[in-house]
Amino acid sequence: MLLDRAAVQRIVASALAEDLGWGDVTTEGLIEPDLKGVAQLMAKEEGILAGITVAASVFTTADPALQVEVIVPDGSRVEPGALLAVVRGPLASMLKAERVALNFVQRLSGIATVTSRYVAAVAGTGARIVDTRKTTPNLRFLEKYAVRVGGGFNHRFCLSDGVLIKDNHLAAVRATGRSLADAVRGVRQRVPHTVRIEVEVELLAEVEEALAAGADAILLDNMDIAGMRRAVGLIAGQAIIEASGGINLDTVRAVAECGVDLISVGALTHSAKALDISMEMDS
Amino acid sequence: MLLDRAAVQRIVASALAEDLGWGDVTTEGLIEPDLKGVAQLMAKEEGILAGITVAASVFTTADPALQVEVIVPDGSRVEPGALLAVVRGPLASMLKAERVALNFVQRLSGIATVTSRYVAAVAGTGARIVDTRKTTPNLRFLEKYAVRVGGGFNHRFCLSDGVLIKDNHLAAVRATGRSLADAVRGVRQRVPHTVRIEVEVELLAEVEEALAAGADAILLDNMDIAGMRRAVGLIAGQAIIEASGGINLDTVRAVAECGVDLISVGALTHSAKALDISMEMDS
Amino acid sequence: MLLDRAAVQRIVASALAEDLGWGDVTTEGLIEPDLKGVAQLMAKEEGILAGITVAASVFTTADPALQVEVIVPDGSRVEPGALLAVVRGPLASMLKAERVALNFVQRLSGIATVTSRYVAAVAGTGARIVDTRKTTPNLRFLEKYAVRVGGGFNHRFCLSDGVLIKDNHLAAVRATGRSLADAVRGVRQRVPHTVRIEVEVELLAEVEEALAAGADAILLDNMDIAGMRRAVGLIAGQAIIEASGGINLDTVRAVAECGVDLISVGALTHSAKALDISMEMDS
Amino acid sequence: MLLDRAAVQRIVASALAEDLGWGDVTTEGLIEPDLKGVAQLMAKEEGILAGITVAASVFTTADPALQVEVIVPDGSRVEPGALLAVVRGPLASMLKAERVALNFVQRLSGIATVTSRYVAAVAGTGARIVDTRKTTPNLRFLEKYAVRVGGGFNHRFCLSDGVLIKDNHLAAVRATGRSLADAVRGVRQRVPHTVRIEVEVELLAEVEEALAAGADAILLDNMDIAGMRRAVGLIAGQAIIEASGGINLDTVRAVAECGVDLISVGALTHSAKALDISMEMDS
Amino acid sequence: MLLDRAAVQRIVASALAEDLGWGDVTTEGLIEPDLKGVAQLMAKEEGILAGITVAASVFTTADPALQVEVIVPDGSRVEPGALLAVVRGPLASMLKAERVALNFVQRLSGIATVTSRYVAAVAGTGARIVDTRKTTPNLRFLEKYAVRVGGGFNHRFCLSDGVLIKDNHLAAVRATGRSLADAVRGVRQRVPHTVRIEVEVELLAEVEEALAAGADAILLDNMDIAGMRRAVGLIAGQAIIEASGGINLDTVRAVAECGVDLISVGALTHSAKALDISMEMDS
Amino acid sequence: MLLDRAAVQRIVASALAEDLGWGDVTTEGLIEPDLKGVAQLMAKEEGILAGITVAASVFTTADPALQVEVIVPDGSRVEPGALLAVVRGPLASMLKAERVALNFVQRLSGIATVTSRYVAAVAGTGARIVDTRKTTPNLRFLEKYAVRVGGGFNHRFCLSDGVLIKDNHLAAVRATGRSLADAVRGVRQRVPHTVRIEVEVELLAEVEEALAAGADAILLDNMDIAGMRRAVGLIAGQAIIEASGGINLDTVRAVAECGVDLISVGALTHSAKALDISMEMDS
Repeated sequence: MLLDRAAVQRIVASALAEDLGWGDVTTEGLIEPDLKGVAQLMAKEEGILAGITVAASVFTTADPALQVEVIVPDGSRVEPGALLAVVRGPLASMLKAERVALNFVQRLSGIATVTSRYVAAVAGTGARIVDTRKTTPNLRFLEKYAVRVGGGFNHRFCLSDGVLIKDNHLAAVRATGRSLADAVRGVRQRVPHTVRIEVEVELLAEVEEALAAGADAILLDNMDIAGMRRAVGLIAGQAIIEASGGINLDTVRAVAECGVDLISVGALTHSAKALDISMEMDS
Repeated sequence: MLLDRAAVQRIVASALAEDLGWGDVTTEGLIEPDLKGVAQLMAKEEGILAGITVAASVFTTADPALQVEVIVPDGSRVEPGALLAVVRGPLASMLKAERVALNFVQRLSGIATVTSRYVAAVAGTGARIVDTRKTTPNLRFLEKYAVRVGGGFNHRFCLSDGVLIKDNHLAAVRATGRSLADAVRGVRQRVPHTVRIEVEVELLAEVEEALAAGADAILLDNMDIAGMRRAVGLIAGQAIIEASGGINLDTVRAVAECGVDLISVGALTHSAKALDISMEMDS
Repeated sequence: MLLDRAAVQRIVASALAEDLGWGDVTTEGLIEPDLKGVAQLMAKEEGILAGITVAASVFTTADPALQVEVIVPDGSRVEPGALLAVVRGPLASMLKAERVALNFVQRLSGIATVTSRYVAAVAGTGARIVDTRKTTPNLRFLEKYAVRVGGGFNHRFCLSDGVLIKDNHLAAVRATGRSLADAVRGVRQRVPHTVRIEVEVELLAEVEEALAAGADAILLDNMDIAGMRRAVGLIAGQAIIEASGGINLDTVRAVAECGVDLISVGALTHSAKALDISMEMDS
Repeated sequence: MLLDRAAVQRIVASALAEDLGWGDVTTEGLIEPDLKGVAQLMAKEEGILAGITVAASVFTTADPALQVEVIVPDGSRVEPGALLAVVRGPLASMLKAERVALNFVQRLSGIATVTSRYVAAVAGTGARIVDTRKTTPNLRFLEKYAVRVGGGFNHRFCLSDGVLIKDNHLAAVRATGRSLADAVRGVRQRVPHTVRIEVEVELLAEVEEALAAGADAILLDNMDIAGMRRAVGLIAGQAIIEASGGINLDTVRAVAECGVDLISVGALTHSAKALDISMEMDS
Repeated sequence: MLLDRAAVQRIVASALAEDLGWGDVTTEGLIEPDLKGVAQLMAKEEGILAGITVAASVFTTADPALQVEVIVPDGSRVEPGALLAVVRGPLASMLKAERVALNFVQRLSGIATVTSRYVAAVAGTGARIVDTRKTTPNLRFLEKYAVRVGGGFNHRFCLSDGVLIKDNHLAAVRATGRSLADAVRGVRQRVPHTVRIEVEVELLAEVEEALAAGADAILLDNMDIAGMRRAVGLIAGQAIIEASGGINLDTVRAVAECGVDLISVGALTHSAKALDISMEMDS
Repeated sequence: MLLDRAAVQRIVASALAEDLGWGDVTTEGLIEPDLKGVAQLMAKEEGILAGITVAASVFTTADPALQVEVIVPDGSRVEPGALLAVVRGPLASMLKAERVALNFVQRLSGIATVTSRYVAAVAGTGARIVDTRKTTPNLRFLEKYAVRVGGGFNHRFCLSDGVLIKDNHLAAVRATGRSLADAVRGVRQRVPHTVRIEVEVELLAEVEEALAAGADAILLDNMDIAGMRRAVGLIAGQAIIEASGGINLDTVRAVAECGVDLISVGALTHSAKALDISMEMDS
């Protein structure tokens, strides 16, 4: 569950610059740069912590003289009042970095928390909860990390590390007189052998066609429970099965019990609410 | 309600690169680059549209040969099924840009939509709904734009275009033997005359101190309704009054009716859920 | 009087790269990389020092093995021959960094020096000397810092942290049938409550109109002394008063004595001459 | 007298972003984006114009819908009131770009103007006026262009396109037991044959040593007129001769008449005052 | 066989800046910017053309006034003297861009040419020639494109779109008491289902272990022909088989005839020699 | 033989990001981040080592916790099996950085190795082997460094640090009625006095014209041995003489023996094959 240090530093530096503008005029006008202090990051709500090292990186990037002691590691379930990390060093620098640090860890913990609820809902079924590409622009690697922290799994990262032939692709293929089998064959010429080919279907008839075409995985899009169950029976282990489309916490277990391998949920990233975390200061 | 073209292009280009990786292997393997098509962006949920020109910029940045006709302008209330924009040109390019375009417009419309609900809730009271700095890292200018589209107002953009003396600042000031009045005086030396000085208070006694110190604006943090009402009476027009702290759609009207000028709501940006919008294709 | 470390490092790294090209062919051809030495930055002219930490950052960015001891802090009045800082470490690295370090500190000290002359000229009048946006492209945060070092104050940093309705804006407003009062009202919808609205006027009649429109500040542009005096009387504390337009060291005191709050001087930044500073080396 | 289009665009885009912050809140609050207008760039002072195409690039980069007609080309002597360029298109965009455009053209014209005075002062002597590396960080290519526009010549652009062995280099060389001749030989191993080797001297004895060492050019640093005259006689065409060190408009002709080939003047770039140019608008 | 336009533009702009320095002093000193001309890109050697559109992008990025007509598309076999493209427009701009354009197309054509020789050598065997990650830093997407142009296939693009468990990984795994089967299981938790897991083996015993562990693909590293043949028999379609390690044009067919699916060849990219292509000008 | 630290870091960081994608999924799935190890870089082929500090920078940029001990310095002749450097620290980080580190050092050592062969071939003749601008886009400063490491010399770095008037330039000059002498005179106006002017010729008659025009250097392009010999006699020390055009290891000595000063060889950089170097790990 690692995060690339350089990638984190780039995004953190950019976020700090966005928030700093041409200077923290409040802090600079009030607090001497060499005044030291201690601050504590505290959970104010129950959930799964994710991104505490990103928050730490915000503080140390803002000022290398700041030291951050992480008390609770990512992936922990935290209760209101839990102490997450302690920051020590120049007080002015902490104040400059506070909001950006919280913005990261609150968002990522929000994603981990909602993910963990979906994961719990399907416990014991063998289905994986996976994310989608419905992530915040330019934050994808962090958000996909938060999904893993929450117990979920990642779908492909981007357009180049997985093939997904969707209805729009297939329509274009058919419009030029080619079949799904032609499409699967064609795309195999373009992609490394390390990448699997997945085909999106809406009807049972399409499931059979996808199998015949040699799909490595089949995405059942917006099927009802009965349909999914029959699709799973039809596929019978010949391809990886993913369910998708408007699945929520109320419906996810029923979907899992159909026997699908993966359930992808856009809401993990596009609609998670931030987990409440605050910085409190001793001075 | 303008957005800086160059800033939009930078963030859009970066988001496209994030999603593209080293190529859209599915589309490139299936669809000839010169095959033309038409796609439609459609609302699938009721809400306020924001960011349709950002979505348009995604398509034209991905491929200058794409043409986007915006049907419904930002700020419009849309119903499920509403046609928002039409994209024409190379089909392969549309498919490459689809997800990124939707990610932007769904998120921004989500923010505008939730903002509009808060604005409606305080209608007629004279209170402004304002945002906070609890925005997504590196997307602040877009998210603050979405708040305006939804009928809200912006608080300061970052640490340099407004002064907000918070409890942590004040504690540090007092620890060095200075008063709030000293603090306000001190910070006026640092900031342009174009910037106002706001002081955060939690107690009525602090309201009086802030007024005496010459605060231009006073933020009532986490006060109850009774407290806020008395604070408004005390301030009596001598300073701009902002209410903040855990205010939600259920409580916002009561707060507004206390007579405050501004109500800041972090949830406008940190916990908005995406508005459902999709791209449908004719081929 | 702080400078953001990260922003300084970015501009310093870019300036070093500009001067280095593909290598310091002279030094590399002559001096072994491990030869150590000591260099001294010395004032060769009387003035106010600004940017010595920027110069230090040039040396340590060029080579982290260089150590810089700052002898005289920014804001000090220095005499010819004054020792400002001592650099120790690899001699070749000092030589590579010398010109860029001097270019920064000479320019910033030049600005602080000229600012201090204006500040001295209005001593005791209560008027602030403020800068403008007539700064060197991409060096604004450093040049505005130098103005503060020299005893001046900053006007707004850029187009987003202050409103200034100038004649060209007003002409456009009037061309569409709106009044100044409409303009002030309109712009308040766009800007945070933390930002004041300033209106530029040239005639006394316009002063009254600006007051009536609710301007927070009024800029008296190119008025003569008599006019400014009457404007100050008219405004009588209802708005912050700024004087501007061709004011120089000969005229600035008379302007200050009119009772204006601020005097903005473009020449602080657009026409300051560099303060002479040199690097001398022991070897 | 060309400027690289891409390099100009990069620096212009960065300067626009610096000035724009998160939006031109004044203009956006007042002026409809589709309101058209015409603006004129006018000289308000006598001098040599430089950078009018850079100013034009600022307008068109800010908004491609702006059109700039350059009336007077770079290198022209302009009088107060001269019309330099006309800008047509969206009025709001002109207002956003105005200050940045003027900041560039005023600074570059200031440099061209002071350069032209030095050039005029040595007319007929055969000496070239050349610039130095004492330029504004990150603006060197523009400032060196302005020197050429003013009739001056460029010295080396940076540390990699010319060798200049200065006293500090030589001291380091001697400290390791090597001679100037060793140094010249050594550096020839590092540099392309396309690059000449120049040696800085302060005394006549050093001139002879430099000649013997095979220097291609000799820089006479801070010599008096008599010394320079004797040095010129000594060198007698065996090397290019440059004079440097505190030369000003009063002394430059006497230096030129010594028969030196080049006179380098740091003040061309480090202390030029901006030429007064303004934008006036019809609306 | 598409290339992402934005990615090409970024690398082309950077390469042009590298070659331009602070200006093409030769061309600028000699040729008027409005002098027009025509230039021809010609093959001077037999091979497979790749990157002609990259070369075209160099010209149009250097100057949008240049027009490039591509005569021969990528993937064509060209003979000495073949006309590849015609460039029309400002002669000075062509000269500035010439070297960079040629550097790209010569390198990429060199890669396509050597790839085509390997592809020809295994014709009819069913084995794919694939590339490796032994590419030029920062040029990988172009070099992998050139491999496809030459008839080869791509292996994974980078560390994130394919799993390859190498001997060093396995040694570390075993050092912590885990087996290969543990490793395969472990890594499946990290990676999307769209990505296959490949295991590197050197011995036949390891082949069996890899099969048992559930490897999707097996890389036979530095095996001799007999070993590979037995490995192919052992695997018998249960996994994709890749051969690697010092395979050259003399040995590649024998390897292919063992029945492996893929043969990876680092020399396609790390040791290809440039194809000779020149620009000739009519003036 | 120095390399600019900052420039190396920029290119190394970019190359690491290219190879890392969104994470090293293999290593992250298998190896704990705190597991330590030792790795050795070993030569597997005979040649000249170049870029070992670049490889070291790859490791320490990937993870500052890695420590690299360089055993053999750049410029050394290495035999198969030679230990070049030892890397100690987190094993997972070594594995992430391995390929990028090797890609740099293999390529640069390949260039140094082929250069050393040309240098050996002309030993004792007084001719310098020099490189060209036929380098890999964006790697020029590294490749030119590798040429120096191999005993070669550098030609101009880019278009701005040397003048080379080629046939295409001259044709354009003549087309506007000017002579070569006019061209040389013209270009001297543009370039610093630190830069020499070289003229390309193909015929003996052109040699005389170039001398008369005052060329500082003359490039004999594609002349045969007899022609070069006569050209050398004709020039007789009045200009630096460079030979160029299709010279290879078989012909280079004969060219050198003609008495030319420089022999430029594009193949040093455009067609060098990588030197085989590997990383071996103890675990």
